[in-house]
Amino acid sequence: MNVPQSSPGSRLDNYVDRYAARTAGMTASEVRALFAVASRPEVVSLAGGMPNIDALPLDAVADTVARLVAERGTVALQYGSGQGDETLRGQICDVMRLEGIEAHPDDITVTVGSQQALDLVTRVFIDPGDVILAEAPSYVGALSTFASYQADVVHVAMDEDGLIPEHLENAITAVRAAGKRIKFLYTIPNFHNPMGVCMSAERRARVLEICRRADLLIIEDNPYGLLGFDGEPMRALRADDADGVVYLGSFSKTFAPGLRVGWAVAPHAVREKLVLAAEASVLSPPVFSQMTVSAYLETQPWRSQIKTYREMYRERRDAMLDALRTCMPPGTSWTNPAGGFFVWVTLPEGLDAKAMLPRAVTARVAYVPGTAFYADGFGASSMRLSFCYPTPERIREGVRRLATVISEELELRAMFGSGSTPGRALPGPASPTTQAPGPDLA
Amino acid sequence: MNVPQSSPGSRLDNYVDRYAARTAGMTASEVRALFAVASRPEVVSLAGGMPNIDALPLDAVADTVARLVAERGTVALQYGSGQGDETLRGQICDVMRLEGIEAHPDDITVTVGSQQALDLVTRVFIDPGDVILAEAPSYVGALSTFASYQADVVHVAMDEDGLIPEHLENAITAVRAAGKRIKFLYTIPNFHNPMGVCMSAERRARVLEICRRADLLIIEDNPYGLLGFDGEPMRALRADDADGVVYLGSFSKTFAPGLRVGWAVAPHAVREKLVLAAEASVLSPPVFSQMTVSAYLETQPWRSQIKTYREMYRERRDAMLDALRTCMPPGTSWTNPAGGFFVWVTLPEGLDAKAMLPRAVTARVAYVPGTAFYADGFGASSMRLSFCYPTPERIREGVRRLATVISEELELRAMFGSGSTPGRALPGPASPTTQAPGPDLA
Repeated sequence: MNVPQSSPGSRLDNYVDRYAARTAGMTASEVRALFAVASRPEVVSLAGGMPNIDALPLDAVADTVARLVAERGTVALQYGSGQGDETLRGQICDVMRLEGIEAHPDDITVTVGSQQALDLVTRVFIDPGDVILAEAPSYVGALSTFASYQADVVHVAMDEDGLIPEHLENAITAVRAAGKRIKFLYTIPNFHNPMGVCMSAERRARVLEICRRADLLIIEDNPYGLLGFDGEPMRALRADDADGVVYLGSFSKTFAPGLRVGWAVAPHAVREKLVLAAEASVLSPPVFSQMTVSAYLETQPWRSQIKTYREMYRERRDAMLDALRTCMPPGTSWTNPAGGFFVWVTLPEGLDAKAMLPRAVTARVAYVPGTAFYADGFGASSMRLSFCYPTPERIREGVRRLATVISEELELRAMFGSGSTPGRALPGPASPTTQAPGPDLA
Repeated sequence: MNVPQSSPGSRLDNYVDRYAARTAGMTASEVRALFAVASRPEVVSLAGGMPNIDALPLDAVADTVARLVAERGTVALQYGSGQGDETLRGQICDVMRLEGIEAHPDDITVTVGSQQALDLVTRVFIDPGDVILAEAPSYVGALSTFASYQADVVHVAMDEDGLIPEHLENAITAVRAAGKRIKFLYTIPNFHNPMGVCMSAERRARVLEICRRADLLIIEDNPYGLLGFDGEPMRALRADDADGVVYLGSFSKTFAPGLRVGWAVAPHAVREKLVLAAEASVLSPPVFSQMTVSAYLETQPWRSQIKTYREMYRERRDAMLDALRTCMPPGTSWTNPAGGFFVWVTLPEGLDAKAMLPRAVTARVAYVPGTAFYADGFGASSMRLSFCYPTPERIREGVRRLATVISEELELRAMFGSGSTPGRALPGPASPTTQAPGPDLA
């Protein structure tokens, strides 16, 4: 076959038989096309996981960045180390101390957001067919990364206190009995995405103990740990096991995501592998971003900025929980997050959140269907609602609209025996597309 | 085996039996330890590929960035699209028009430096054991990426006019006869890294024709295309084949590398895969960096900045070629780059550039041995000298020192029948380490 010279904009794929096997796991989210519609201003999006950064002191940040470029521009605009800026790595140690972690700057690899840390950890550990244990449900972006490395994700049940230790033990036993290799447990212990819950202190000790006995590495993903609305941050798993835990952190929610600065803390030998993988991937993370974060941490009151964020998100959480209590029809249940960005809503029996989504978007409200957070097709009766981005008024309005849609679905169901059915036409472009943002950025 | 709780800083690798197979291809460069020594100020490093950005108008860039943050900070510091900023993608089309490329902003995926574009292309196309054709020698960072995806690199000979078409044809035939799949040809047609040469216009047409007939995708890596010292930029391969070429570009050498902004131009279906792979890898490239580049292109005289860079690099190239002519002992040969950063030097017969490196560093000059640029162990008699970073005076001094070392090696050889032998002790830390910069960043 010759590659024909087609006109620009041709949609024929001349390479269809030549992609790597791993691309089978790289698919656009099925709800992606819908999110293109959901980004219209008249739609209240409770779908996206974007932080609200309106509260940032932009003039102060502008001054900080201008000084950085004018005074240290030839360093800030130059290539840097694959492991990341040493000053920033020291400051990251200070930030992590808030969660009980004692680490050395050399333990840290700075990454292009903590998504890259996830990517690098997966790249370093996962051969096709290896098993990753993950909470049920789990972060959609992690599931995409795991799929792109052809991992098999086995979900472990969780409840309002996080991952259930007995289920973890059972999963380890069952997977190993089936002759498969488990490479790590992936967990989001604080203000879980999408469930909004925290792993209790008692369970943390149990999970650490189980993984230690089973010789199982833990990947602790912690973007929301400092965004708790009550009391002190919880103690990180990494704080109690320096050798058995790789910890992933991020400035995306405590400062700003557009800089793409995250990090991994790993045992020495793993850290060396992560740096080699990072170099093969991007040479070095952006020095410009890293030094901006470093200068921000040094010159700005970052602790009080986090407090400002917490108060803003608490107000939005309150608005959402209040509206849910006021508006939702009986049979609907939801989690009670004490921090973070998300509430997990479970619909009255028989309703399907994915099938209902087109109707919701028509009613000008969007959410992420629960199925997005499972590697195995579960989650149809649930949805994730985000309270991070819209104002409290918009959140109330969005929940009111959603409650109306759910009530109508229940009425339809009472009348005809079923609500929305899967396969119903979407009010947007019919095929998934990469033009629209992914579920977490919608 | 239980994971023991070792003390912080433990150097035992509890995970040694658990890494993915691909990590076997992720190794620290053998000359890396030496570069830690070579970065001492008394050593003239002709090793690194870092651009010299002293000529940047830092105050103007500082103003641009400050205005960006103050006026559009809530966008610039927020998550963005996985494909990259649309305005920037339009501006990239303008930049590429200088090389004859007519592309649409939708054809472009913005990446974290063009290294990430290389990584994503490899991720999308390469299964373990697939063959990549690459020039002999080729860019060390590409070889690292290819190795990390377990590709087999087959080198194709080049000369002063670039890749030799007949060798390309023979390589395609031989690899296919051996029953292996070739996924793409990787080429750096302009001011080649490490050889410094350009593919002639006549050869470009031949290479395109051969690849079209053989149904072989071309990856055209072009970081130096606008840094020619004479005349107009050469016409890109992509300019004559929109469907058969994936083009990789970068702002690292025409603006600044610390922003990490590069891009890939690809046929539509490939571009969709690249964006999905990018999202699984980093969610989105840094909006902060992208909008900084975009504002720079919009408000600053970027064309004249490139002219400034060209003149600076030409002066350094002249200094290096002049010093080589003046100082090198007979039997040494080198390329005559008309742009870019690099001269490729071949030693008198019998000398080994890698074995000689410790002696060179002791004599306070560093280079990258030719073997770094081959996947197959060749290149021992050659070395790459960079003229991009040191001043003309330092370049002359470095070449003088290097010539002295070579002459001494020749004398040793004349007396004892051999010069330096491989395996000789290095004057730095004995083991490869990720602490030092990689060969291209030293």
